Formats: sequence, structure tokens, C-alpha cells
Amino acid sequence: MPELRKDPVVGRWVIVATERARRPGEFVQQRVEPVDPAKDPFSERNEQYTPPEVFAFRDERSKPNGPGWQVRVVPNKFPALRVEGDLGKEGQGIYDKMNGVGAHEVIIETPNPLLQLEQQPIEGIARVIETYKIRMVDLLHDTRFRYVLVFRNFGPQAGANIPHPHSQLIATPVTPKRIKEKLAGAMQYYGYKERSIYEDILRQETKEGTRLVCENAGFVAFCPFASRFPFEVTIMPRRQSAYFQDIQPNEILLLADTLKLTLQKLAKALNQPQYNYIITTAPARYPRPGYWATIDQDFRWHIEILPRLTLIAGFEVGTGFYINPTPPEEAAKYLREIQI
Amino acid sequence: MPELRKDPVVGRWVIVATERARRPGEFVQQRVEPVDPAKDPFSERNEQYTPPEVFAFRDERSKPNGPGWQVRVVPNKFPALRVEGDLGKEGQGIYDKMNGVGAHEVIIETPNPLLQLEQQPIEGIARVIETYKIRMVDLLHDTRFRYVLVFRNFGPQAGANIPHPHSQLIATPVTPKRIKEKLAGAMQYYGYKERSIYEDILRQETKEGTRLVCENAGFVAFCPFASRFPFEVTIMPRRQSAYFQDIQPNEILLLADTLKLTLQKLAKALNQPQYNYIITTAPARYPRPGYWATIDQDFRWHIEILPRLTLIAGFEVGTGFYINPTPPEEAAKYLREIQI
Repeated sequence: MPELRKDPVVGRWVIVATERARRPGEFVQQRVEPVDPAKDPFSERNEQYTPPEVFAFRDERSKPNGPGWQVRVVPNKFPALRVEGDLGKEGQGIYDKMNGVGAHEVIIETPNPLLQLEQQPIEGIARVIETYKIRMVDLLHDTRFRYVLVFRNFGPQAGANIPHPHSQLIATPVTPKRIKEKLAGAMQYYGYKERSIYEDILRQETKEGTRLVCENAGFVAFCPFASRFPFEVTIMPRRQSAYFQDIQPNEILLLADTLKLTLQKLAKALNQPQYNYIITTAPARYPRPGYWATIDQDFRWHIEILPRLTLIAGFEVGTGFYINPTPPEEAAKYLREIQI
Repeated sequence: MPELRKDPVVGRWVIVATERARRPGEFVQQRVEPVDPAKDPFSERNEQYTPPEVFAFRDERSKPNGPGWQVRVVPNKFPALRVEGDLGKEGQGIYDKMNGVGAHEVIIETPNPLLQLEQQPIEGIARVIETYKIRMVDLLHDTRFRYVLVFRNFGPQAGANIPHPHSQLIATPVTPKRIKEKLAGAMQYYGYKERSIYEDILRQETKEGTRLVCENAGFVAFCPFASRFPFEVTIMPRRQSAYFQDIQPNEILLLADTLKLTLQKLAKALNQPQYNYIITTAPARYPRPGYWATIDQDFRWHIEILPRLTLIAGFEVGTGFYINPTPPEEAAKYLREIQI
């Protein structure tokens, strides 16, 4: 019998197939082609093909927009939003709109076009995570911005047009709807139970262990109870913290370790699947709307990894009703048993 | 300057590109291959390849599960939900689940494997719409079911595995989250404005005309102000009605006319694009939860047509934050000017 499972935070029901579960080998996948270094705008010595960098980790004597860097952040050449201008909020009849003000940046994770994130040493991954933090803190000084969305697309089906390893961020003057829903759900739970929902989730996941993928002193990786997608993984910090950018140096190393191991397991289990990951964090600290006054207690930042093994049908987008052909317990068991 | 636009019902912000707008010819599309009639389980005289029919429009002397039908409804051979059993609602620690009880049916729209819905005469399309209504009414007699989701996938990227023209329905024991959000948004608007949001939308769309696709005495087709996808179209009845299944015979003909014209325009403008459409309607009338007591006044059923021209990135699913490269005003202008 298939099961209907409810996401405990946002209340979305998901159909989870329990018979005829699809196993790793049964997903047809497009192989991700490596990049041709000569045509790669993100390679070392091709710096002139990107807009000027806004941040970089680079060798002491190297110059901006020249070689000698480890991580480089540049504005997106075709940005979805523009940095200049005011918000220009206005109505248009019954509708509401504002100018598309925001930042859209690319985080080039390495000069090496063939070195995937999970193949980097822990220090390399930690440098990428630190870059996320640095850019987030910097952009949130701009009081027009309410949220910084950090995400990584791997593979063309996941939306990555350039194969060179990179992440992206979009700073927006509004808080995305799904973030608001999570805040509201977490607040409601705390109000009712007087306990954090994320604390309860971690307690149950680490105790039951059936959906656990891996864990260390700082982080727990697990396949969520109401996974929408096969092999979906959530990485959550053990320490209560609503804001990703409050991550401490030792936690960055522990997160790098968890992220590396999780992505390695997914790559090995599913033959380098295309995926997206997203950092879900609290919106800008100030101005904090009154109804999120308890955000530090209610909400916890986390990372969602969404492998692209099945089509996302418009039907699912249109209704919020997902059908997941692989139970998270089976996905987690498979990922746990993969030896790296 | 790109624009941020807010969906007036559910409050989702969408980034709408206004420069470099993508025009119909610029979307790369996979052509949908026609079916091989010999291997087509939905063809006439292949009735034995489907589970026994639950409903059909057929010639007077024809026999169930034999030839001589115009529309045929059969259970899905690989259903996402099972009809038998009780709901078995229970907790599992902090999580909630229930048995995957429900119905999953296929509406075979014509015996002709090559006759797409928009190529049928008005009477043929009306027969398909009437079948939706008949199945919806029948399934909602089962008190376990709260919602009947009617949808049509066209093309493999849109989730259709069998090319023979068909729609599907899923009856579920829960109301999908996005339906709840629409009900809540519509109720909030009515509470604040003392007017129906759908009435206001129709008034503005028919008056401004910039996002209008086509209209007749019963229905209006328009590209919504905060379209998430290029060439997204909403079809809405002029008469206030929360429940699709309350549609009257003359309205069925008018809807068939609007649906035919809209799909023909999309097919011609975008070279037979893959798409999904979804009927959004109110949940089961009884038991009606107290907080939806005003549903008949607040909410209006409608159809959303979502062409699959761009990838749906996991990023967008994960955050509810959509980037639409074609302004709905340009899409609507293009569709209006297409001559059928």
C-alpha cells in the first residue's frame, strides 16, 4: 500500500510508493558532459570573459581579475535581477509589483573545470561555504534586500548551463514564499508544543536511524520523512541557529565534511546524478517583522539536496502534490551502505 | 528593468524578465512523436490491454470493454493510490501519515491515437469535459475522498508516457496544499475587500485587455499577471462557481470552445508545445470545514495551462521563487494575434 505522508513543517502531503519502489539503477539519466577548458569562461586565465569579480580567495600577490585564485565570485552575466535602482513598489489595479532590484552572483568554486565539489578536499569545500557566508553578510548590509538565496545546480537538467563547478546566489527584496511557509510552520509548532520542530526532527531521525545518511559532531544528513523526490537529503546543524551566516569556523569544517560525504554517496549510488541544492535560512535580521520575533527559537537553517532523477511535472508544481517512487527509508539505507 | 510581481491569490512573488524577453521561436523543444497504433493500449480494439472500464461514452449496442466508444475511463494500470482500504490515519513519532487510499483513473479522450484534444470538434471536447464532471461527481460520493485532481499531460517532458490523447484524475483523501492556499488567499481577500478576488481579476483583465487571449459568453482566457511560466494561460468562468462539477451543459460547450481555441493558439504559436493543464476546484462539499463556510462566495474554479518551455529547476520547487523569461503581456499579444 502506498503511503500519504505529511511534511511536518509546511503541511504538504506527499504520496510515497512503498511497493515497486524504484532503486538507484532504475532511473534513466543523462550523463553530464565535462567542459572544454578552452571555451570555459570560469577557468583560470579566462577571467576577462566574466564581469569583474566582487570577491575572491586568491594568492597574496595576485591581482583581481587575474589568475592565482581559489574561489572567485562574479556578477551573473545575464542576471535575473539588477543591482541598481530603488524598489518602486506600486499597485497596478488589483495587482502588486516592484522593480526587479537584487543581486545575482556566480560563485566559481575552483579554477579547475573538472574538479566537482565533492572531489575537493575538505578545506576546498570549506572555502566555498565560507564564501557563501561572506557574500550573504555583505549583501544583507544593503537594506533593500530581505533574503539571500544560495543554490547549486549540477547538470543541464538541473539548470546549469556552464559545466564548470559553480554555485549561485540571488539577493531579493522579498522573502520567498516557501521560506515564509517554513517560518510560519515552525512558529506554529513551537507555539503548540513549546519545543522546536527541528529539535524534534533531529531527535527522531538520530534515534530511529532508518532515514539517516551520515552524521558528525556538528551535522546530521537524512532523507526527510515526506521526501518529494527520490534520494532527497536534508543536512541540518545540531546547534540551534536560524541564520546560516552565523556559522562558526569549526562548523564550516564539519559542514564541509557532511556535504562532501553526502554528495560522494549520491554520486556513487546514482552515477553522478544531476541535482540542485538550496540553503534555507532566515530572512534579513533587520527590519524583523513583529510576527517573526521568535525566529531564533523557532527556525533552524538547513540545506536541501534534490537529485533530479524524475521529471518535475507541471501537475506537481500546479498542485503542490508530489508522488515519490522511492521511500526515503530505502534511499537512506542505500546511501548509508555505500562505502566511500 | 525586470519586474517582481505578486500572485494576488497565493502571494507568491515571480521575477518577470522584461528585457531580452524570450519569444516563441527561441524555446528549444522536443517534438512529440505520434504513437504506433499497433502498440497503443488506448486504441479501439486494444481494450484488453487496460483494466476494465469504469465509465464510457459508447454506441448504444456496443459492449463494455469492446469497440464502439468515444470516451473511455479506466483505472490507471500503475496507480499512485489504491482504491481499497480505510484511511488508517496515524502518527509515527512527530510525523503524520495515512494509507495511500484514493483513485487514479485515465480518461481516454478518443479512440483515434492521432487526434489531439484541440483537433477534436467542439462536441468531442465537450464530451471529455462532461466525463471529467461525471467522474468527479461519482468519486466524491465516496466519503473517504476530499479532492479530485483532474489533469492532462501532453508530451514526455510533461509526464505523459503514452502518446495516445488522454487525461488523468487522482482522487485523494486530503486537499492538496496549493488548493488550500488558494482558498485561504481568496477568503482573506473577500474578508478585506468584501469583493471576490476572481471577480476583480476578470474585471481588470477584460478591461485592460493586455493579457487577454480570448473570451466568449461563458469564459475568459488570459495570461496571469504573475505567470510563473512563459505562455501560461488561465481559463476562468464568468459565472461565480466554486465547484467545477456544477458546470451546466451550455457552459460545457462554451468551455470546450475556449479550451479548443486556446490550445490551438498555443499549438500554432509554439509548434505543439508539451504542456500540463490542471483543473483547480473546491474540495468535497461535505464535510465542509467551518473555516471554508464562505467558499461559494470566495473561491472560483479555473483551469491552468502550463506549457513546458523552460526547465523547472529544483531551485524553483525548493523556494517557490520562479523566474519567467517572457512577460505575460507579450505572450498574450502573440496568442491573440495568432489566426486559427
